[in-house]
Amino acid sequence: MEQSYVLGIDIGGQTAKCGIVNARGEVLAQTILVSNKHDNAADFVEALASTLKKLIDDADLEGQVRGIGVGAPNGNYYTGEIQFAPNLAWAHECNVPFVNMLSEAMGGMPVALTNDANAAAMGEMTYGAAKGLKDFIMITLGTGVGSGIVIDGKVLYGHDGFAGELGHTCAVRGGRRCGCGKLGCLEAYCSAIGVARTAVEWLEQHPEESSLLRLRENVTSKDVYEAAKAGDKVAKDIFDYTGAILGRSFADFVAFSAPEAIVLFGGLARAKEFLLEPIQKSMNENMLPIWKDKVRILFSSLSESDAAILGASALAWNI
Amino acid sequence: MEQSYVLGIDIGGQTAKCGIVNARGEVLAQTILVSNKHDNAADFVEALASTLKKLIDDADLEGQVRGIGVGAPNGNYYTGEIQFAPNLAWAHECNVPFVNMLSEAMGGMPVALTNDANAAAMGEMTYGAAKGLKDFIMITLGTGVGSGIVIDGKVLYGHDGFAGELGHTCAVRGGRRCGCGKLGCLEAYCSAIGVARTAVEWLEQHPEESSLLRLRENVTSKDVYEAAKAGDKVAKDIFDYTGAILGRSFADFVAFSAPEAIVLFGGLARAKEFLLEPIQKSMNENMLPIWKDKVRILFSSLSESDAAILGASALAWNI
Repeated sequence: MEQSYVLGIDIGGQTAKCGIVNARGEVLAQTILVSNKHDNAADFVEALASTLKKLIDDADLEGQVRGIGVGAPNGNYYTGEIQFAPNLAWAHECNVPFVNMLSEAMGGMPVALTNDANAAAMGEMTYGAAKGLKDFIMITLGTGVGSGIVIDGKVLYGHDGFAGELGHTCAVRGGRRCGCGKLGCLEAYCSAIGVARTAVEWLEQHPEESSLLRLRENVTSKDVYEAAKAGDKVAKDIFDYTGAILGRSFADFVAFSAPEAIVLFGGLARAKEFLLEPIQKSMNENMLPIWKDKVRILFSSLSESDAAILGASALAWNI
Repeated sequence: MEQSYVLGIDIGGQTAKCGIVNARGEVLAQTILVSNKHDNAADFVEALASTLKKLIDDADLEGQVRGIGVGAPNGNYYTGEIQFAPNLAWAHECNVPFVNMLSEAMGGMPVALTNDANAAAMGEMTYGAAKGLKDFIMITLGTGVGSGIVIDGKVLYGHDGFAGELGHTCAVRGGRRCGCGKLGCLEAYCSAIGVARTAVEWLEQHPEESSLLRLRENVTSKDVYEAAKAGDKVAKDIFDYTGAILGRSFADFVAFSAPEAIVLFGGLARAKEFLLEPIQKSMNENMLPIWKDKVRILFSSLSESDAAILGASALAWNI
């Protein structure tokens, strides 16, 4: 029987999203498994395998699934391990040989693993905004800032499988403390949490400016976005500031791999209307003349609910 | 007849170094052509071809040379052009189709071109300190700061052939004006010229400190090196500062491509005894825990007089 389907799994701190995907990039069926209720990896993998088998059964596709692609924080493509993932209760203190465990629980089905941002890059290249591009950088602007670097059509893994940690390059020398422990990381400024931190600082530093954001007890990046849409000047200034930091970091990334485009994905990328212009301005100010106005900024074209599953599933076609 | 030899040519602002190289990486014969006396590219290429033919004739190797590798500022591997090279009188205002011109002048001999830092990376990988490495970053610390990035055994050229301009990533936000026009580039701090600028600033800012460098009219990076060797504290402080800047930039480069090693080459790399420790300290302070103490800093092992020719020649084996 022809094996024309793959499974895509996106493992996050709260949930694992699972779906069956066909070669046209359509998610035919999907389900969600809670991922923070297991205190050891074996239990989680067992629950995951049951969920996947049921998903395949319900879709009547037994024998037609060729492999499983998994995106997970700190997922290592080379070793097949999830390595010390801080957000996963069953993996935060150890190396979990996830590929072997899941493949065994699924009767030997081939499994490939990578981190969530690389999976997003694969998805964008296979089905989304980066279709046809061979050299691009995917930046995921979510709770954190992740990245997947594609060079000549292949995800860059580097010597150890951990290439593409651009969220932890330095954006502001000696700046804010990042969750990773370092100072001034891009993630500390341009993630959802980073934007919320900027909002708090900004409101404190500009007591003379009125803003809708002052009505909020705990400002989130979503609040900033909604205030900007309502015309709030402070909220727009916050996006200008965030875009300027992204743009100058992007300029340095371009000097590294000379990509055709940078593709943005994630909750914060929804604020395209407020981010695009300051990003482009700041990139151009910080790039060598050979690249000015030449590197495109694209926004993910995948529907957000499918994107994570599609990204992971894209990995499974080439196992 | 077996074609067991290649030509390597390193074109700089003052001279073009040309040599015949065998497969063991030995430079069998070499010569130097002045490169700044021609005001158009056709004249230079004609002079270069005559020089190369004589070199081959004198070595009695006619028919045994399989190709020519050329390293030149702004040399583009993809297009075969030298593009607006500021230091080359015959190329600073235009695109020169160098590969085609030289190949034609040499009776159709295959020619490959890349920029000087990529050529250095090829040389190091083929004959030098990076032999056997598949993922490393070459940093050339000369008049400027160049870089050649090797990923999975191949030089990274990027979408347009210009990848690897790490000397023009930002080291100090809003810092010194670089020759390229931008502010705070790594090159403005960590090239030979950058170190000399640091020395001038340092002597001005610390009038209370005595230093051998105060005896010099125009301090060069070589003066700083010699003073440091003589035990001069200010000179050592200057290398500490330079190493710290290199180290934190290297930390960000590691987050991009996760290399096994960073290889240093060029005049300033001779100051290994003063640079290595501050570089490693600063890298470790600025990297994610997964990379601490894992990325090696290597120094070029090629003899300086041969290195440029060897680097360029390495390109010719795979034309």
